[in-house]
Amino acid sequence: MVEGEEEVGSVNLEKFCIDHKEMLVADVILISDTTMIALNTPSVTSGLRGLSYVQVEVTGPNRDLHSGLYGGAVVNPCNVLCDMVASLKDKWGRVTIPGFYDDVKECNPEERAEMAKRPYDKDKFMQSVGVTHLQGEEGYSDLERIGIRPTLDINGIWGGYTGEGAKTILPSKAFAKISMRLVPYQNAERIADLFIKHFISLAPEGVAVKAEYLHGGESYVSPLDTPEYSSASLAVEDVLNKKPIPVRSGGSIPIVSTFEKVLGIKSILLGFGLESDAIHSPNENFPVENFLKGIETIVLYHRNYDQMKQKLTG
Amino acid sequence: MVEGEEEVGSVNLEKFCIDHKEMLVADVILISDTTMIALNTPSVTSGLRGLSYVQVEVTGPNRDLHSGLYGGAVVNPCNVLCDMVASLKDKWGRVTIPGFYDDVKECNPEERAEMAKRPYDKDKFMQSVGVTHLQGEEGYSDLERIGIRPTLDINGIWGGYTGEGAKTILPSKAFAKISMRLVPYQNAERIADLFIKHFISLAPEGVAVKAEYLHGGESYVSPLDTPEYSSASLAVEDVLNKKPIPVRSGGSIPIVSTFEKVLGIKSILLGFGLESDAIHSPNENFPVENFLKGIETIVLYHRNYDQMKQKLTG
Repeated sequence: MVEGEEEVGSVNLEKFCIDHKEMLVADVILISDTTMIALNTPSVTSGLRGLSYVQVEVTGPNRDLHSGLYGGAVVNPCNVLCDMVASLKDKWGRVTIPGFYDDVKECNPEERAEMAKRPYDKDKFMQSVGVTHLQGEEGYSDLERIGIRPTLDINGIWGGYTGEGAKTILPSKAFAKISMRLVPYQNAERIADLFIKHFISLAPEGVAVKAEYLHGGESYVSPLDTPEYSSASLAVEDVLNKKPIPVRSGGSIPIVSTFEKVLGIKSILLGFGLESDAIHSPNENFPVENFLKGIETIVLYHRNYDQMKQKLTG
Repeated sequence: MVEGEEEVGSVNLEKFCIDHKEMLVADVILISDTTMIALNTPSVTSGLRGLSYVQVEVTGPNRDLHSGLYGGAVVNPCNVLCDMVASLKDKWGRVTIPGFYDDVKECNPEERAEMAKRPYDKDKFMQSVGVTHLQGEEGYSDLERIGIRPTLDINGIWGGYTGEGAKTILPSKAFAKISMRLVPYQNAERIADLFIKHFISLAPEGVAVKAEYLHGGESYVSPLDTPEYSSASLAVEDVLNKKPIPVRSGGSIPIVSTFEKVLGIKSILLGFGLESDAIHSPNENFPVENFLKGIETIVLYHRNYDQMKQKLTG
């Protein structure tokens, strides 16, 4: 099955699954939409974060106004949007939406210790994205902030005059796209509801605020002690000559939890991308070598899985 | 003299004034780039606010990143920009930039009492711009907030993905255009310097911040006890059958203070625009009746001024 709507929430594929449950029968689903650390440090994705994506709109005056003749008395929706968004996190990097963390299950010390063993070169990571400092929720490591903790990020913001030079307006409207990455047990729609309720409650007098849930999906955790995962792990080891590390990814593939919910089928996330692929960035790329190693690995995965199943059932 | 660069700071006209001082000799300068309250409530602009306009740029990672794979650990420049801008005003609506109010001379109670007499219909004002509440610096009336107090407004803000639907990126950059309206004795360049120094000091680790002064101009106050002002006031009264009220406008015409500084000539601000002209807004307009009344008034202004000068010098 090939699908091209993953980035917009796989709405039609979900509907297709619901409508054709009887046809869509399988032992396991294999998806190659994930990354590994490196060809010489192979990994298999053992979990994904969920996603709740909203768009907000703050409206002040009924048109852009002259900022001299009105500025000071008429509430500026761009300033208000900044105030509102700034208040969504506290100084410890925690999201301030009431109830946001209610369903988050803390990873236990063993899981965190296991995660800390994952090869991670902070300097190299920072260099690859061109920053000299990382920052996030206090009390968690960089990998934990990306892998097992929920986040809140502005994906886009706009309002008023954005061309060359100066235009002295008090804008009528300001917008932002804001997404939250979610972890197991956080429900995407519930989080969107909490966000929208809270965000609207933050609106000061003098502006009108709208917030809309654009799309989302649940997080996913793949159990490691199954024939499906073992088949994948062994296939990678055969091709890349090293046992892969299970890694909880910070990304989201909403359809994975939909498959589980609607079809009752677990997915194995056997992907071959690299951090250097620059996904969602300019010059996104995929190395030919990874493509070829991926083909070999998937063939072996099917062989392994078939043998294991025969052993189990036979 | 006709000039078409007022909205971008009249940079070339300033140079022209400096280069041709000897040619540009006059008793007074008459400018018709202002408004009056209404044809049946005529007013003459007796002052203008200054302006200091800056653009800021916050850079995080060297490219837009996947918000799932990096979000939580890599600092998001859009969130940072919101934090920084939100902190530029306190909860009383006062600008928090150190030194911002140092040179502001408070209007005395008599001036404020005089200003309070100006006809002002709050409901009509709110209705005209489509809001149900006005808000600004505490301790000042709406007209004071627009006329005699300095402001800070976002004129435009942008960063990340701003198209239709969702794109899950952690943006590389965020920008804002921010302008401050200034009052007498605040110097536009000094305020820009204070802004830039303060704004850069707010930058957290993990982002790089740039701030650039785009343009500005000084405020202006027109004395009311001069033959020039009287000539204008009488001309308006002759044409509109009512003595005009002097009004300190919230707008800025940077060249007015340049004329005074470079050429040593005061300006009279005899304009015929109306609030309903929607200046700097969609469907900007100018009523033909005001155009015709303006022509009559300016002719009378010249006659009045000539007569007064003859009386004074003869």
